[in-house]
Amino acid sequence: MHSIKIDPWSSENLNDYEHIFREFGLEKFPDELSKKLNHILFERNLVIAHRDFQKIMACMEVKKPFINITGIASSGRMHFGHKVDLDLFLFFKSKKAKNYFAICDLDGYCSRADAKVDSLMKAKEFAIENLSHALALGLTQKDVYLQSNKPAKYYSLAFEVSKKITENNYRAIYGDINLGKVSAVLLQMTDILHGQLNEFEGKMPSITGIGLDQDPHARLVRDLSKKSQYDFEVPSFIYFKHQSGLQEGQKMSSSQENTAIFLSDAPEIAAQKISKAFTGGRVGVEEQKKLGGQPEICKVFEFQLFHNENSKEVNEIYSTCKAGNLLCGACKQKLIKWTNDFLIKHQKKLIKAKEKAIEIVETKK
Amino acid sequence: MHSIKIDPWSSENLNDYEHIFREFGLEKFPDELSKKLNHILFERNLVIAHRDFQKIMACMEVKKPFINITGIASSGRMHFGHKVDLDLFLFFKSKKAKNYFAICDLDGYCSRADAKVDSLMKAKEFAIENLSHALALGLTQKDVYLQSNKPAKYYSLAFEVSKKITENNYRAIYGDINLGKVSAVLLQMTDILHGQLNEFEGKMPSITGIGLDQDPHARLVRDLSKKSQYDFEVPSFIYFKHQSGLQEGQKMSSSQENTAIFLSDAPEIAAQKISKAFTGGRVGVEEQKKLGGQPEICKVFEFQLFHNENSKEVNEIYSTCKAGNLLCGACKQKLIKWTNDFLIKHQKKLIKAKEKAIEIVETKK
Repeated sequence: MHSIKIDPWSSENLNDYEHIFREFGLEKFPDELSKKLNHILFERNLVIAHRDFQKIMACMEVKKPFINITGIASSGRMHFGHKVDLDLFLFFKSKKAKNYFAICDLDGYCSRADAKVDSLMKAKEFAIENLSHALALGLTQKDVYLQSNKPAKYYSLAFEVSKKITENNYRAIYGDINLGKVSAVLLQMTDILHGQLNEFEGKMPSITGIGLDQDPHARLVRDLSKKSQYDFEVPSFIYFKHQSGLQEGQKMSSSQENTAIFLSDAPEIAAQKISKAFTGGRVGVEEQKKLGGQPEICKVFEFQLFHNENSKEVNEIYSTCKAGNLLCGACKQKLIKWTNDFLIKHQKKLIKAKEKAIEIVETKK
Repeated sequence: MHSIKIDPWSSENLNDYEHIFREFGLEKFPDELSKKLNHILFERNLVIAHRDFQKIMACMEVKKPFINITGIASSGRMHFGHKVDLDLFLFFKSKKAKNYFAICDLDGYCSRADAKVDSLMKAKEFAIENLSHALALGLTQKDVYLQSNKPAKYYSLAFEVSKKITENNYRAIYGDINLGKVSAVLLQMTDILHGQLNEFEGKMPSITGIGLDQDPHARLVRDLSKKSQYDFEVPSFIYFKHQSGLQEGQKMSSSQENTAIFLSDAPEIAAQKISKAFTGGRVGVEEQKKLGGQPEICKVFEFQLFHNENSKEVNEIYSTCKAGNLLCGACKQKLIKWTNDFLIKHQKKLIKAKEKAIEIVETKK
């Protein structure tokens, strides 16, 4: 049995979920919970695994506080793939969590090549863009923080945890030692842990939604929480599927314009991208009518699955497609309509949100 | 010609100064300046080399501001060897510098083994001890800062500089990559540079006194100052000789009790240590009277040279020793008297200084 190395910096797609669950000791997300948690990402089995989610469940059931922590690297524009992180965050926010949404400007600058982010100011420009979207999607100023603008204790913890990571440990997870990426790792560990310091909320369970490819980070931070001089609850994680790119075999990526619909894309641009998306359609109309479509491999259907909250509509698309009664052109029109409605509504909120975001990020040099 | 590697973490003594000057491109501290700068460390050629000191000289001559930055790691008790750093710092303070004296609690915790400093709280205990001495020696609250209690921009810079240090670059200077030590390096680089940010003093020359063994740090920070996205003046450095330990062939070290007189040693303990110190005395009284003593290799004389500001007295010790007219016992009594006077006076100030130090360090968990 050979070992699969999950590299958080790689952009490869992951398929062999079961294998990975076994190898890393992840638990499959329980079906009974998926049904119980009233949110499409759970109901549609897009959240596939967890570590210690029962601790969060217990808090939610008795309305005890827990920390809701996630973040977004400020190194590119925000697309619908990122929205999944936001959707999960907003779900836990609605469950009365203590909210920590990190705008990762420092991390974005330190870990990305200069060709992509050549200064902290550039990372702050991305921060403004990303924060605008986060606010427009329903976060408030109180829910968010900028990595470059925290109290001293946050940074102190970042340096303190460094002492508990050996070179071998680091290398096994991340491969090469690049000091900028070391910084990014320290900041990410601290994002997860700092809410539990007495200076913030104090010791309590925390939940973070990540992709499977981020599990090495999760294992490291869980390990650090046990080794720390502070009394930390071991952080919990849930693992969601990544929405794939609009073309076949590609990841949705900020750096590849046509793989993603960006939250700032003009509706007509989104429409163009959807028109060109890879579908599960057959070679011709006749065959499509005879055999039915293949929503399982269709990027247009996948988009509906991740984002359209109207389950009746999504189910209908699925069944009419399978039955050969929905052709790809018409189906794409449905998604174009949904996406355009969403973008128009979202982008209307974006103007005010951006003013607020600028105020929060304070671009002053 | 083989290469001498100066390792800032090693505790070896350095002898081959000239060789090192050549190899690393240090400039010998000019004799005319040594005479001009009215301080024993310059006058007695204990400051031996520099990088870009002319920039500081220019500032002092026209009373333009410059940054005076040094620090002390909070990982042990303060001894007379450390006092040399303080003496230089106080000298530049008297020249109207912008003063940044770093109490390196974070760095002390991150870079030292747990056996020595097992928590940030432990480092803060050392910080209180060291800060007490610094205040008693003449620093004020305004001159000092705690690494763990700075504005966010300080820490941001620490992470930003990490991106400009390659793995090869780091390894060439420090050997093994230990993440705690990486943190300490980032903090030390930031200690030197941050005063030049607009959030602090803005761009201006800076001066730091270090031992030759610290030159790799100096070269790295000078290199970083040039590569930075911020507009920094390249930091200047002066290099002083380290006062050696009281026994033959040893470095003065916090972790070896008998090599050093600590600023908190009771006068009778200091007296005992001086009594046992290695001298340049001959095998018997007769021979000593005939050949004269050897102040060049004498730890008792070295102590006078580094600390006794009364040059007439120090010269007299030297000449009477060389002439065979001063025996080691009597000479040791002179140093015991000087040291006891110093310690009594210093320790009287220490009580109030410690109250202030506790207030500054804020040991609150």
